[in-house]
Amino acid sequence: MKCLITFSYDGTNYGGYQKQDNNSSIQEELEKALSKINNNKVSVTSSGRTDAGVHAINAKAHFEMDKELDLDKLKYSLNSLLPDDIYIKNIEEVKENFHARYNVKSKEYIYKINMGEYNPLEKNYVYQYNKGLDINKMKKALKILEGTHNFKSFTVNYGDDYDYVRTIFKTNVTVRNNKIVISIKGNGFMRYMVRNIVGTLIEIGSKKREVKDILDILNNEDRTKAGVTAPSNGLYLKEVKY
Amino acid sequence: MKCLITFSYDGTNYGGYQKQDNNSSIQEELEKALSKINNNKVSVTSSGRTDAGVHAINAKAHFEMDKELDLDKLKYSLNSLLPDDIYIKNIEEVKENFHARYNVKSKEYIYKINMGEYNPLEKNYVYQYNKGLDINKMKKALKILEGTHNFKSFTVNYGDDYDYVRTIFKTNVTVRNNKIVISIKGNGFMRYMVRNIVGTLIEIGSKKREVKDILDILNNEDRTKAGVTAPSNGLYLKEVKY
Repeated sequence: MKCLITFSYDGTNYGGYQKQDNNSSIQEELEKALSKINNNKVSVTSSGRTDAGVHAINAKAHFEMDKELDLDKLKYSLNSLLPDDIYIKNIEEVKENFHARYNVKSKEYIYKINMGEYNPLEKNYVYQYNKGLDINKMKKALKILEGTHNFKSFTVNYGDDYDYVRTIFKTNVTVRNNKIVISIKGNGFMRYMVRNIVGTLIEIGSKKREVKDILDILNNEDRTKAGVTAPSNGLYLKEVKY
Repeated sequence: MKCLITFSYDGTNYGGYQKQDNNSSIQEELEKALSKINNNKVSVTSSGRTDAGVHAINAKAHFEMDKELDLDKLKYSLNSLLPDDIYIKNIEEVKENFHARYNVKSKEYIYKINMGEYNPLEKNYVYQYNKGLDINKMKKALKILEGTHNFKSFTVNYGDDYDYVRTIFKTNVTVRNNKIVISIKGNGFMRYMVRNIVGTLIEIGSKKREVKDILDILNNEDRTKAGVTAPSNGLYLKEVKY
């Protein structure tokens, strides 16, 4: 039986989503719990990775179980076995040819920034910038990134043969109680892409750069032109659509 | 120089506010940082204690420093020395006879409950009840506690000679996005008092008890009559007034 899970997690205490040698990971916890239920090794394939400290509200992943199982019971057992910072929200059966990464149609990330005073209660969940930012400038700059572009300036070096073209469908910047929420929806995101965009937006919002600079950065196709990588703690994988 | 500080903290990783032998505490961290700045031992007197896992948005405490210091610089140095889950929001100089506990006029606590699905991102900050509750019944029951009463049923046994009478000035219950916020403002609170009131309200909201039962519980002056103690993670010291 092939299943698709929707799950949320607090990334604070993990080295990232993906299994790694010297650190705990979300994938390892999922596979450990599923393998126990399955009495046999289960591999989990997610829609993509998130880095250390990044959170997820609705992450998606697929896996195969040796036998047919009641989905409600499977959800209950999984949540009982998983640590309390990972939660399975939904399990559904999918067709044999479904693939949690290859079939992604869109993904939405959100990034939270606190412009108000430092809040120790949100230190792991909202980037504590603790200074004012010009939201309108950030909004305008982010709008410029909508559409299909080569995002080489906003990610790591995957080599010259790699296709850095992605499409950003929709962006938004909202503010409430001094808290900014930046949302970016696109067909796919490369490593650090959202955090590098946010870092650049912060430089624009703090008037270190002009709104129009973002177009130059984009056109330069050169990582050294963009802003610094914003911290991982403000980033959330919000939605994955198939 | 005698100072009054307003501070916030994430209580998740502490054994409580008060200094204790086998656990970390907010008081210990404050005294360690202040003693370092003062080059001499500093004792901190707070408006009261909070238990392990309880948070504070605006806690208050006083202390004395050997010399006059610039308050802005003191705030900056303190925050540099303190761990990132404690934050000094304000420091003001107070008169010699000021006392952070004895001079309290009112305190407000809030308690957060999630009626929606389990949220791993809020597990340390909102009690994950994850079931529906009848808010109107809880609101009505809480209103009955307003005024001056003997709250022996809602606290620990301090012995027969202890004065269990306290005044609750104002209460409120609000809901947004399946999240309940209960607020209770009074002239003073005894140990577990808010959590025992909330535990009783949850039993009323889940129809295990009637609204009118809360009056019987109050009049019985017997801890065994009230509901279970609600978990510490949903509780916040919100305001202390002098």
